[in-house]
Amino acid sequence: MAIVFPFSAIVGQDEMKLALLIAAVDPKVGGVLAFGDRGAGKSTAVRALAALLPKMKVVVGCRYNCDPEHPERFCEDCKEKQAAGKLKTVQAPVPVVDLPLGATEDRVVGALDLERALARGEKAFEPGLLARAHRGFLYIDEANLLEDHLVDLLLDVAASGENVVEREGLSVRHPARFVLVGTGNPEEGELRPQLLDRFGMSVEVKTPDDLPSRMEVVRRRDAFENDPAGFVASWTKEEAKLRKKITTARERLPEVTVSNAALERAATLCMTLGTDGLRGELTLMRAARALAAIEHAKTVTDDHLKRIAPSALRHRLRRNPLDDAGSTVRVDRAIAEVFG
Amino acid sequence: MAIVFPFSAIVGQDEMKLALLIAAVDPKVGGVLAFGDRGAGKSTAVRALAALLPKMKVVVGCRYNCDPEHPERFCEDCKEKQAAGKLKTVQAPVPVVDLPLGATEDRVVGALDLERALARGEKAFEPGLLARAHRGFLYIDEANLLEDHLVDLLLDVAASGENVVEREGLSVRHPARFVLVGTGNPEEGELRPQLLDRFGMSVEVKTPDDLPSRMEVVRRRDAFENDPAGFVASWTKEEAKLRKKITTARERLPEVTVSNAALERAATLCMTLGTDGLRGELTLMRAARALAAIEHAKTVTDDHLKRIAPSALRHRLRRNPLDDAGSTVRVDRAIAEVFG
Amino acid sequence: MAIVFPFSAIVGQDEMKLALLIAAVDPKVGGVLAFGDRGAGKSTAVRALAALLPKMKVVVGCRYNCDPEHPERFCEDCKEKQAAGKLKTVQAPVPVVDLPLGATEDRVVGALDLERALARGEKAFEPGLLARAHRGFLYIDEANLLEDHLVDLLLDVAASGENVVEREGLSVRHPARFVLVGTGNPEEGELRPQLLDRFGMSVEVKTPDDLPSRMEVVRRRDAFENDPAGFVASWTKEEAKLRKKITTARERLPEVTVSNAALERAATLCMTLGTDGLRGELTLMRAARALAAIEHAKTVTDDHLKRIAPSALRHRLRRNPLDDAGSTVRVDRAIAEVFG
Amino acid sequence: MAIVFPFSAIVGQDEMKLALLIAAVDPKVGGVLAFGDRGAGKSTAVRALAALLPKMKVVVGCRYNCDPEHPERFCEDCKEKQAAGKLKTVQAPVPVVDLPLGATEDRVVGALDLERALARGEKAFEPGLLARAHRGFLYIDEANLLEDHLVDLLLDVAASGENVVEREGLSVRHPARFVLVGTGNPEEGELRPQLLDRFGMSVEVKTPDDLPSRMEVVRRRDAFENDPAGFVASWTKEEAKLRKKITTARERLPEVTVSNAALERAATLCMTLGTDGLRGELTLMRAARALAAIEHAKTVTDDHLKRIAPSALRHRLRRNPLDDAGSTVRVDRAIAEVFG
Amino acid sequence: MAIVFPFSAIVGQDEMKLALLIAAVDPKVGGVLAFGDRGAGKSTAVRALAALLPKMKVVVGCRYNCDPEHPERFCEDCKEKQAAGKLKTVQAPVPVVDLPLGATEDRVVGALDLERALARGEKAFEPGLLARAHRGFLYIDEANLLEDHLVDLLLDVAASGENVVEREGLSVRHPARFVLVGTGNPEEGELRPQLLDRFGMSVEVKTPDDLPSRMEVVRRRDAFENDPAGFVASWTKEEAKLRKKITTARERLPEVTVSNAALERAATLCMTLGTDGLRGELTLMRAARALAAIEHAKTVTDDHLKRIAPSALRHRLRRNPLDDAGSTVRVDRAIAEVFG
Amino acid sequence: MAIVFPFSAIVGQDEMKLALLIAAVDPKVGGVLAFGDRGAGKSTAVRALAALLPKMKVVVGCRYNCDPEHPERFCEDCKEKQAAGKLKTVQAPVPVVDLPLGATEDRVVGALDLERALARGEKAFEPGLLARAHRGFLYIDEANLLEDHLVDLLLDVAASGENVVEREGLSVRHPARFVLVGTGNPEEGELRPQLLDRFGMSVEVKTPDDLPSRMEVVRRRDAFENDPAGFVASWTKEEAKLRKKITTARERLPEVTVSNAALERAATLCMTLGTDGLRGELTLMRAARALAAIEHAKTVTDDHLKRIAPSALRHRLRRNPLDDAGSTVRVDRAIAEVFG
Repeated sequence: MAIVFPFSAIVGQDEMKLALLIAAVDPKVGGVLAFGDRGAGKSTAVRALAALLPKMKVVVGCRYNCDPEHPERFCEDCKEKQAAGKLKTVQAPVPVVDLPLGATEDRVVGALDLERALARGEKAFEPGLLARAHRGFLYIDEANLLEDHLVDLLLDVAASGENVVEREGLSVRHPARFVLVGTGNPEEGELRPQLLDRFGMSVEVKTPDDLPSRMEVVRRRDAFENDPAGFVASWTKEEAKLRKKITTARERLPEVTVSNAALERAATLCMTLGTDGLRGELTLMRAARALAAIEHAKTVTDDHLKRIAPSALRHRLRRNPLDDAGSTVRVDRAIAEVFG
Repeated sequence: MAIVFPFSAIVGQDEMKLALLIAAVDPKVGGVLAFGDRGAGKSTAVRALAALLPKMKVVVGCRYNCDPEHPERFCEDCKEKQAAGKLKTVQAPVPVVDLPLGATEDRVVGALDLERALARGEKAFEPGLLARAHRGFLYIDEANLLEDHLVDLLLDVAASGENVVEREGLSVRHPARFVLVGTGNPEEGELRPQLLDRFGMSVEVKTPDDLPSRMEVVRRRDAFENDPAGFVASWTKEEAKLRKKITTARERLPEVTVSNAALERAATLCMTLGTDGLRGELTLMRAARALAAIEHAKTVTDDHLKRIAPSALRHRLRRNPLDDAGSTVRVDRAIAEVFG
Repeated sequence: MAIVFPFSAIVGQDEMKLALLIAAVDPKVGGVLAFGDRGAGKSTAVRALAALLPKMKVVVGCRYNCDPEHPERFCEDCKEKQAAGKLKTVQAPVPVVDLPLGATEDRVVGALDLERALARGEKAFEPGLLARAHRGFLYIDEANLLEDHLVDLLLDVAASGENVVEREGLSVRHPARFVLVGTGNPEEGELRPQLLDRFGMSVEVKTPDDLPSRMEVVRRRDAFENDPAGFVASWTKEEAKLRKKITTARERLPEVTVSNAALERAATLCMTLGTDGLRGELTLMRAARALAAIEHAKTVTDDHLKRIAPSALRHRLRRNPLDDAGSTVRVDRAIAEVFG
Repeated sequence: MAIVFPFSAIVGQDEMKLALLIAAVDPKVGGVLAFGDRGAGKSTAVRALAALLPKMKVVVGCRYNCDPEHPERFCEDCKEKQAAGKLKTVQAPVPVVDLPLGATEDRVVGALDLERALARGEKAFEPGLLARAHRGFLYIDEANLLEDHLVDLLLDVAASGENVVEREGLSVRHPARFVLVGTGNPEEGELRPQLLDRFGMSVEVKTPDDLPSRMEVVRRRDAFENDPAGFVASWTKEEAKLRKKITTARERLPEVTVSNAALERAATLCMTLGTDGLRGELTLMRAARALAAIEHAKTVTDDHLKRIAPSALRHRLRRNPLDDAGSTVRVDRAIAEVFG
Repeated sequence: MAIVFPFSAIVGQDEMKLALLIAAVDPKVGGVLAFGDRGAGKSTAVRALAALLPKMKVVVGCRYNCDPEHPERFCEDCKEKQAAGKLKTVQAPVPVVDLPLGATEDRVVGALDLERALARGEKAFEPGLLARAHRGFLYIDEANLLEDHLVDLLLDVAASGENVVEREGLSVRHPARFVLVGTGNPEEGELRPQLLDRFGMSVEVKTPDDLPSRMEVVRRRDAFENDPAGFVASWTKEEAKLRKKITTARERLPEVTVSNAALERAATLCMTLGTDGLRGELTLMRAARALAAIEHAKTVTDDHLKRIAPSALRHRLRRNPLDDAGSTVRVDRAIAEVFG
Repeated sequence: MAIVFPFSAIVGQDEMKLALLIAAVDPKVGGVLAFGDRGAGKSTAVRALAALLPKMKVVVGCRYNCDPEHPERFCEDCKEKQAAGKLKTVQAPVPVVDLPLGATEDRVVGALDLERALARGEKAFEPGLLARAHRGFLYIDEANLLEDHLVDLLLDVAASGENVVEREGLSVRHPARFVLVGTGNPEEGELRPQLLDRFGMSVEVKTPDDLPSRMEVVRRRDAFENDPAGFVASWTKEEAKLRKKITTARERLPEVTVSNAALERAATLCMTLGTDGLRGELTLMRAARALAAIEHAKTVTDDHLKRIAPSALRHRLRRNPLDDAGSTVRVDRAIAEVFG
């Protein structure tokens, strides 16, 4: 595995880093889309996240990352192992699965296992990237370049949490709950509203425009490229601190309460902005709760809602021909209106 | 199988829920198309229907869901079993078959069974989703995204009730009577009139626009996502009540009468609206009859016709360039005119 | 096989029913194209025809429906059987072959028999739908949706009466004389003039616009859908009467004479209308003769010609930019002019 | 083989019939293209030609129709047979090969013999339609509908007289000299000039516009369709007479002389018309010589040139924007100018 | 092999004949493109060239035409043979390889040898037409019709002199130095500048416009078609004379000198015309040297440069919107300017 | 392997030669794109580079060019060899891998090893060109002609330094760090900004416009083509000198320092030009450092930055509609502004 630039060594880019942390604390928030200029470091941050995530418990050898604490959701193999008393558990890294360009549909959704088909004449299913990403992250670099039919497949699965395969004589369904993490460059082609809606949060990434930051980025980048291992070693402590922060926030999350008043604020904000459906409210509430947990708060406050609202709602606005302000400006205006 | 949100826990959306109940009571009404905003819960309702349907009798092991009460329609296998006195019967869930995006034509219509072809050199037919959906429901999420040639195939089968396969050296025909249930987002591309016409009823789904409903939706959704099993358990009683309602209405259906006057009203309404063909009248009459059965009425009244007319007719109007009122408004106007 | 609505139970649609009867009496008339509104019952009538046709004599087991009365046209298998004195004859239903959408070229024209190729390494021909339709009907629902290259293939075969196969290393030719029966919806895309020309007759199908007929259609349709077998049983006698009518007309056909005067009228009518080629005259003469046979006349009269002319000629007119009357109106006008 | 309408029973269409006779007398004239209205009988005449042609000598069993009188052009198989003293000769019908729509490239140019490849692991060539048409005719009905890449292949082979195959690991070349005979309907799409140029002669086919001819066509056609064998029998003598005419003309052909004056007239006519290249002159000279042979003349006269010029040159004119007369009119005008 | 019309019997077309001779004397000049009217004899001349070329020395059995005089460039097989002392030499005809339309990429660049793969499970390379053309000519008739991706492949190989194959699991490179010879018809689609640039010389071919020449062409062509072998025999002596001329010129070529003054003239001419890159100068110098060798001159004179300049430069001009003179006129004008 | 023109014998083209040297000294600079006129020698220079590069250490037999000095990055095979004490090292040429047009995706990214799959039923990975190019150069001639999906694949890998393969049932990732070297012709289609951004430096190549240079180019080229081996031999010493220069610069590189002031200048220049992201600064700093190393300087000076800035930044400018000066002019202007 290639050595990646440490998350904590990223200069600036606070909005993006916060959104990724929130997704790590509560995966149900629904993924993060980072968009912005070429070369501003979108990919770097997302790739860095993988190294940061605490491990999770899985059944040893399970191709679907079955969770030993939920035997009621076991796959067929795990059920057999359990019945035979042979089920073993292990701490494994949370999967952060790359969906490379050029990935074929068979590898994404899974396909007939040709090796077994040829060798033993059996029709067996070989799970794909969607199975591997279960309980983890699915990462799409340059989501704009993904073929339309793969996007449709992903949306379908991301919405239902299940991968239903009907191809090559196979008829299989398995759970596939993952956080979509993507980057996009608006100059290379727009993302479809359907796809945008599946990302819980979106963040804008910009090249820093102050000289000292730019120079610091170049300096760290140069140092990393000249000696990756050494550079990573020098940031180990920072990384561990951040990882601890995630673990603690996860433990606190179930205790954080959302008052009726806060929920009303969130709903009012979404109605003011005219976001489609109710995914806006749901995400806003969840993301604010995760933010509260990160910051050791016991209840969600207006401040949490206001700070996370741009990331949670910005990409859910309908184009308003009478209001050509950018999305971020429109969200800020609505926040001012609702929160007074 | 993923745990789904209970039908009875859906807030509002009365038109959609009624249409789905009617289709469950009389499948000949011809399917339901739910269209509307992103995130308004179209898929949720449709997926919830499956859990609600009472079971049906089938021949054990039959790949075409043969009905033991109609030996005259048995498939070859069932005929052999019956002759050998080996036919067994079982109560099985009504199939609600997902047609996933990316489904290949071979899995939809059925195809050569490659395993048998390779292993034994035999040319056998492996039934597809259309066979599996027989006597049940075929569910298409985002029907607009379905490839045109699959739409054409579906329409052909939905119209004739038979699946005729002429491909890969196979020549097979088998019954395939199912209720099409679909969702569509008008923003992602229009549905062809041919396809619309195949849905008995259509319903418009909107995000609720009152604050309390919105908050209730978010609350229930959050509760469900935090603990699916617990949430479903708390709605078991409501679900059972609704299921009982369906069973009772089915038993009553054959007794409900349609007077000549009611039929004349239905036909006059359709002529006023200028719907193509006679599927409008037929659906309206059938849906009103099912509604009467649900409500324990013995005969179809004007009220039944008026209440169900928008769902039954709205999607059958020709575009009228001189009348740019929406379809629902036009149906309402015609109802007022005909029913006085 | 699905139970179909009886031909004789169809309300109205007299032109269509007459055209189908004529094609049943003299298949050389060349097929029928029914076009018109969605849901007006085009498919119903065509599918009903199959149940009505008297049986025909064929060689037992012949894949090309060889006619035992024409040993000079026997296929290779039949020749061998005859030489061996093993040829047996049977009364079989006239084939009415469905050409389903999604049919692949290999199944339409025939293809390499893969089973034999793989099992025995032999290159054998497996006949397709065109072989199966020989001496019968080939039915295309929604002919507009057929792929262009399949249309070209069909036209070629329909014109020559032979299917010439040059593909997959096969080089086969066999007779394929059939009556094309199709439906089309002008709203879904125009039919090419080449294809129109291959249909002997065309009929326009409209939704009835009087209340009593509409109600009767809905009533019969509802009765049929609630109890198909019972409904069909109640029309058995009517069906038998109609079948008898076809058989009698076929016997009478060779005796019906066409006077020189009648032929001159037919030719004059076609010249007046400026139809391309001479297929118009030929069809008009043949269809009028079949009509005379149906009605027990011994010779073709002006009345026969006038009544059948719209069906025989309507689809053969060139678009006349100076005359924007519909095709039917133009044919009626020419009839008035020629027959005085 | 289907029974075809006899050549001699065709009413009118003198230009087309003459052109086909000339191509039968001297195949080097280069083929005939018949174009015109739908249903005017283009295909009928071309298909009738096959039955009329006298037989030719071939080596028994040769897949390339090797000519026993030209051992220097033998294929490998024939050379082996000759060396072994096993070469046998037979009189065989001149091939008139149908190029059906839907023919695949492998069947047209030839391909790997899969049967042998699979059975014996040998890479052998299986000749295609171009091999079969060698020394005969290649018939393309509706040449406009032929796929462009097949047209390109045909032109290449028609120009060089050789079929060069470089595909599927095969590298084969064999002679393929044939007369292209085609029909085309200008309404269905134009023919490319490249393709037109490959036809020696072109003829325009029109529906007769006098009542008696039209009635005679319909009468003969009706008689033929009611009893094909009987009808053909009644024209046997006429057919034999015509066949004899072809044989005699072929024998006379080498003796017919072309004077320098005649050649100069032909060249002058072509220069006047500005035809591309010199294929116009060459065809005109050859066709006039064949015409002279048919009519028992010993030398080519102005009259022969004048009568055949329209067929030989009409399709070789460049579009002249200043002269919108039809091609035929332009040729006639040039004839008047050159021949005085 | 088909008998071809003799090079020396071609009437007129001096520019084309000279260009082909020059390419035969010094293949490094870089190929000839003949373009012009349909039927003017472009293909005839190019096909005639093959029969004229003197033979070359090759290793017996080598699939890459290895040159026995350059052991340092031997392929693997030849190296083995040499090591084993089994290398034999033979005089073989210079390959003139046809690139037929419809040639598949696998046959052009070479591909996996399926026969060996299937029979022995070995992954061996089967060389294609590019290998076969090495040290000879690659002939493309109607270069405009070649598919774009084949053109790109050819350009790549023609530029580098090597064929690099990376497909089907194969990774092979072998020398492929050949002279591209092509014909093109500007009416059938333009040639890309990239492709034009790869031809050393271009020639315009026109139908002769004087009566005597046209008649002579027709006479010779008619004589050839009536008796190919006899006609070729009557030109044997002329052909031998021409072949001798090529051999002599090749021997003289290394002795012909190019003065600095001549090189400066050539460069000045190209700068005046503004040809892209330096291939113009290089070709002009080489072609003039070959011309000098043909004409027994010891040094390149202005006259040689002037005579060959149109062929060497005409196709390398950029389109000049201010100067709509044809390419030939522009080259002539520049010659007048530079050579005074 | 074909003999290539020596790098040191190239006349002029100083900018291109410098850029290639810098990429050879510090591969992390990120590749060179040469664009310009047809025939100006772009390919020649790039192909010449391969012969010039000093060798590198690799593990014997490793398909991924594993570096013996970095055991922590060993592939599975190398790890096994090391454990078994069987790892051997060798000096090998730096790979300069050609990506030929027509390369298939399987050969670029690697694919299932069919030979092993068929022979042994094993699913093994056969590395592609990306693996072979690791630690070396990947050369794309005419990058504009590369298919879009291959470009996307390359960008993805070039950005991440890893090749992630998810196809044909394979799931493989391996390091693939290479320098992209390409040529492009703006006349044949634009390069996408995404692709441009991946090249560290770009150079413009023009045909020399002074007579002596042009003549010298032609003279050397002619000499090389007449006797490649002899010509190359005469430049051996020059080549060795240049190779030594590269080796020395590499050794010096880590010692060259970049002052804060220099870094600030670089960043200011990029901000002035408004280049996207920070790859501009990074490349500029690295290229200037390599230039300093080549010239034996100990620190990067303004002069180094100024000289290399056009190559490093020219292709990173956004199109500025208010400033239609060419890219080079805009960079020069900004240099003047920043460096005073």
